[in-house]
Amino acid sequence: MPILEIHLLQGRTVEKKRMLTSELTKTICRCLEVRPEQVRIIIDEMEHSNFAISGKLISDSSTVKQDQ
Amino acid sequence: MPILEIHLLQGRTVEKKRMLTSELTKTICRCLEVRPEQVRIIIDEMEHSNFAISGKLISDSSTVKQDQ
Amino acid sequence: MPILEIHLLQGRTVEKKRMLTSELTKTICRCLEVRPEQVRIIIDEMEHSNFAISGKLISDSSTVKQDQ
Amino acid sequence: MPILEIHLLQGRTVEKKRMLTSELTKTICRCLEVRPEQVRIIIDEMEHSNFAISGKLISDSSTVKQDQ
Amino acid sequence: MPILEIHLLQGRTVEKKRMLTSELTKTICRCLEVRPEQVRIIIDEMEHSNFAISGKLISDSSTVKQDQ
Amino acid sequence: MPILEIHLLQGRTVEKKRMLTSELTKTICRCLEVRPEQVRIIIDEMEHSNFAISGKLISDSSTVKQDQ
Repeated sequence: MPILEIHLLQGRTVEKKRMLTSELTKTICRCLEVRPEQVRIIIDEMEHSNFAISGKLISDSSTVKQDQ
Repeated sequence: MPILEIHLLQGRTVEKKRMLTSELTKTICRCLEVRPEQVRIIIDEMEHSNFAISGKLISDSSTVKQDQ
Repeated sequence: MPILEIHLLQGRTVEKKRMLTSELTKTICRCLEVRPEQVRIIIDEMEHSNFAISGKLISDSSTVKQDQ
Repeated sequence: MPILEIHLLQGRTVEKKRMLTSELTKTICRCLEVRPEQVRIIIDEMEHSNFAISGKLISDSSTVKQDQ
Repeated sequence: MPILEIHLLQGRTVEKKRMLTSELTKTICRCLEVRPEQVRIIIDEMEHSNFAISGKLISDSSTVKQDQ
Repeated sequence: MPILEIHLLQGRTVEKKRMLTSELTKTICRCLEVRPEQVRIIIDEMEHSNFAISGKLISDSSTVKQDQ
């Protein structure tokens, strides 16, 4: 039953997303004692001009960008 | 006033979305006794590589894909 | 697979929510050609002091409150 | 710590988003007494066929579209 | 039309929320050229045991708590 | 930078949430190559009458409840 939504900066490969959702599901199952088929994960990929930290778009910020 | 957000796999036509939002609005008005102009609906279309069930991306899963 | 999140003002009875989720699920199945077991609905009940229209909290606004 | 998600119709320039996130961050810092580096803002840009008011897609509605 | 959702730690007074939603609405209207009645704001108040930074619940973390 | 929102049925202890957020953060850091201080996790606890699968509230459904 757990539904997870994760907001990420754009640009991860499908391989990364495959690993991420697989590993997050295992973690949830282990911590919450649910079965994998109960877990749903939504990935929301944000453009660098659609996310801001400290009032600054990531697309404008070289240092934050490196950190993602 | 109700605000509804619906997460769907990508690929529905505008006609489908038109019908969906029209019908959902009628259902909400009937069940909650609100007027249509109070209802807002956000559709979030997810790529098949941005949604996972059972720790598996939909883009990797032929059977789940058919079910959407 | 569709996941629906609905934001409502607090105060609906369980009977109302039962009807609402049942009817919304039917509407989604009919419009999107999915099966009921694929549909998940999250109800988010907001306190009247946690929702604002026109920059005004619902708890401060007698007319908007009636409209919910 | 505040996390803000804002749903907008598609089509704002990067300059508009830069101003919006900068000004929203200042407003949050002033009202909640937090520091800018604690504030994160997610912009969700919706296509005109992915948002409905009164059961009508914005892409179908000339008057609502002008109002955004 | 803009819909804004803001996630905050629990504990702000109604006066604070009144000011916050009023000021955020003004900021949005000014930056996006929309009218106040088009703006909706949802406040999501999180318990200190329902928010984590650096893998640590706020309720477990004295320094982060002060910063909110 | 990743922001994760997880929707759960109500009733987990603080110890469970502590373990969950700690483990999810480690998983995200390992998979996405980010540092722990960049990760934020929001837990949304839903009442059993505020979540529905197959058009049925969890509070009405003995079998689904056991599965959470």
